[in-house]
Amino acid sequence: MNQHLPSRLLEAAVNEFSRLPGVGRKTALRLVLHLLRQPNSDVERFGNALINLRQKINYCDECKNITDSAVCDICADKKRDRSVIMIVEDIRDVIAIEGTHQYRGLYHVLGGILSPIDGIGPSQLNVDSLINRANGEDVEELVMALSTTMEGETTSYYLYKKLQPTGKKVTAIARGISIGGELEYTDEVTLGRSILNRTLYSENKTV
Amino acid sequence: MNQHLPSRLLEAAVNEFSRLPGVGRKTALRLVLHLLRQPNSDVERFGNALINLRQKINYCDECKNITDSAVCDICADKKRDRSVIMIVEDIRDVIAIEGTHQYRGLYHVLGGILSPIDGIGPSQLNVDSLINRANGEDVEELVMALSTTMEGETTSYYLYKKLQPTGKKVTAIARGISIGGELEYTDEVTLGRSILNRTLYSENKTV
Repeated sequence: MNQHLPSRLLEAAVNEFSRLPGVGRKTALRLVLHLLRQPNSDVERFGNALINLRQKINYCDECKNITDSAVCDICADKKRDRSVIMIVEDIRDVIAIEGTHQYRGLYHVLGGILSPIDGIGPSQLNVDSLINRANGEDVEELVMALSTTMEGETTSYYLYKKLQPTGKKVTAIARGISIGGELEYTDEVTLGRSILNRTLYSENKTV
Repeated sequence: MNQHLPSRLLEAAVNEFSRLPGVGRKTALRLVLHLLRQPNSDVERFGNALINLRQKINYCDECKNITDSAVCDICADKKRDRSVIMIVEDIRDVIAIEGTHQYRGLYHVLGGILSPIDGIGPSQLNVDSLINRANGEDVEELVMALSTTMEGETTSYYLYKKLQPTGKKVTAIARGISIGGELEYTDEVTLGRSILNRTLYSENKTV
């Protein structure tokens, strides 16, 4: 599959697909051949959807989440608690957290996490706007909700240091054993943390 | 993830990706967010590659394989054996077979296999052009090299019936146990076939 394909057009399309994360050249060729079997208009719509997406996409003035308006629905919602801002990596995390129906505050979407290997430094992320918001009068608490990977933890620590001068309360979502998870299969680091961070027992902990 | 995304542009791009085989909405969103982090010019090149691909792709006049010329490199190669035509599903099979360096004849690319469920009948495949070629003076043998799935077998049988009137020899690539495969893990149908189709033992069977 490393040999050159017998068509420049095919090669170009396969190259584009295989640049996507998790897509190898074999998969890319399979996807491209699938598109070749679709009507011309469908493939044109696909191509234009990508071009439009990147050119016209808009981010919320406040939380930097993707939206078609100046301010996203969550930031515009008068019923949300404006004293709490949860810091997340991208829109997928907002969707996941909204799905729990356990959070009524606002968000701040970083647009990624610090990753020196991929050349992503603080200037590529929405950090300045976060500090500005954190300094706002209404804001009382900032909740870190980044991944617990090494890069996520590094980003959290970096942000914590940047947020300290604001004097606001900085919290992090709890790490511990999964609900429905078996103790003996939980990794040692998580289990250890869940013991250190043990909480008072209560029947229903969803506030 | 079934909830609506907060942007029409995002929704459109995610929809297009999730129409691809094997790509769900979660993966589609991950790919789209990846593209949003790439430079504008890269995404534009991706979109245009798809549009150009579908609009300008060209198929070999003879074997129907994808090529940028009127006739593909294989069909144009004077050193190939023009008396044998191997019938394959698509360009991936041509690449796989060329990779073996065991075949010096020509190909005929069907462009798919019969699949009533997907609405693919004989008229969607390059069948007429195959029959025309099979009737050619030079042609002596047609080799079936379709997948051994039910749809592949059905297509082979359909083509066999269509090719019979040409009076040419119709063969099929051998099915049997994989080389390097362990006998006890081979499925019974394959094992049974490999016994029925046993061949004379020879030291080197690559002709």
